Amino acid sequence: MGRTSDARERLMSAMMELIWAGSYGATSVEGICDRAGVRKGSFYYFFESKTALAAAALEAGWEERRGELGKIFGEGVGPVERLRRWSGGLAAEQREMWERTGRVLGCPLHVLGAEISTQEEGLRRSIEKILGEYQGYVAAAILAAWGGGEERAMEAAARARRVFAYGEGLLTQARIANDPGLLDEMEEGVLAIALGVTAVAA
Amino acid sequence: MGRTSDARERLMSAMMELIWAGSYGATSVEGICDRAGVRKGSFYYFFESKTALAAAALEAGWEERRGELGKIFGEGVGPVERLRRWSGGLAAEQREMWERTGRVLGCPLHVLGAEISTQEEGLRRSIEKILGEYQGYVAAAILAAWGGGEERAMEAAARARRVFAYGEGLLTQARIANDPGLLDEMEEGVLAIALGVTAVAA
Repeated sequence: MGRTSDARERLMSAMMELIWAGSYGATSVEGICDRAGVRKGSFYYFFESKTALAAAALEAGWEERRGELGKIFGEGVGPVERLRRWSGGLAAEQREMWERTGRVLGCPLHVLGAEISTQEEGLRRSIEKILGEYQGYVAAAILAAWGGGEERAMEAAARARRVFAYGEGLLTQARIANDPGLLDEMEEGVLAIALGVTAVAA
Repeated sequence: MGRTSDARERLMSAMMELIWAGSYGATSVEGICDRAGVRKGSFYYFFESKTALAAAALEAGWEERRGELGKIFGEGVGPVERLRRWSGGLAAEQREMWERTGRVLGCPLHVLGAEISTQEEGLRRSIEKILGEYQGYVAAAILAAWGGGEERAMEAAARARRVFAYGEGLLTQARIANDPGLLDEMEEGVLAIALGVTAVAA
């Protein structure tokens, strides 16, 4: 039973790794099974299709990420420090990946979402839902940094969308340029956009 | 000869349309030929591969876009108005597309770049080059809005990268959500990030 559940998890890990390092379209069931060390016959015991595996892998990945975000956005430190820790962490994570693999891969949600959103409605919805939940962490930190109450929650959510668009766009640009140096400005950019502390040109 | 050059152009248009509406991986030479109304045998007279066609189509698309950007960022109006016209135009273009096709497709450069950057080095380089040139228009408008001279050119380029990351991220989010309403904030967001006129929360 241990082996069975291992195989399912190995398939999910392999799927996310292959999508992230390549693309959904370039990832085949054969390739996933090879990477996971699972026989193709077993694949269909766990998942009815590549799409079903991708959906399960997204959920599992988000569960894990949510745990990390819970710590990053935890209340041990002030809200500005939470935003700093988050944005600095995004940049550090990509640099570490680049040092290890030679590649900046950006955000798997945006990479997959950009590719499949017009073709795979179920996956598109999953990604949209996850991105919305993710933004909630950023919105809560912004609201706390503003010292705002519930009456400013909508405004904080809008600001979080702006911060998020910036962060995601920068991650994709770093993927396209394969250059972790582009992310050196992530922390400053996030704080400027989140808190309106952009240096005004004079 | 007229027909010959038509076929080449039809292949390039079909390629960009199919990538943008779907993905690179989901686009086959057969599908391109069908859409372009060109026989498969003729395809290889013009292009040695799907990748070669994509590279030519990117360049041709950029030529056309550059013409539009020349007008948008032309000196007929002040620099803030140029940024407004550009960002408002991006949103309007996507809304018009959504009304016509039911889809928000985002930016073809980021959609394609996110998908292929780890797999197609030549295309990745083309996209990186085009994005860099595109950002130059935004950087020049920001520098002019600041009333700055050449000594602030680097700073304006950095700010343009920030604006661009935001704009691209928002376009991809709108693609993922298939919601043109997300782009209603594009103009305000671009001006806030470009010019540091973010409303400071009090």
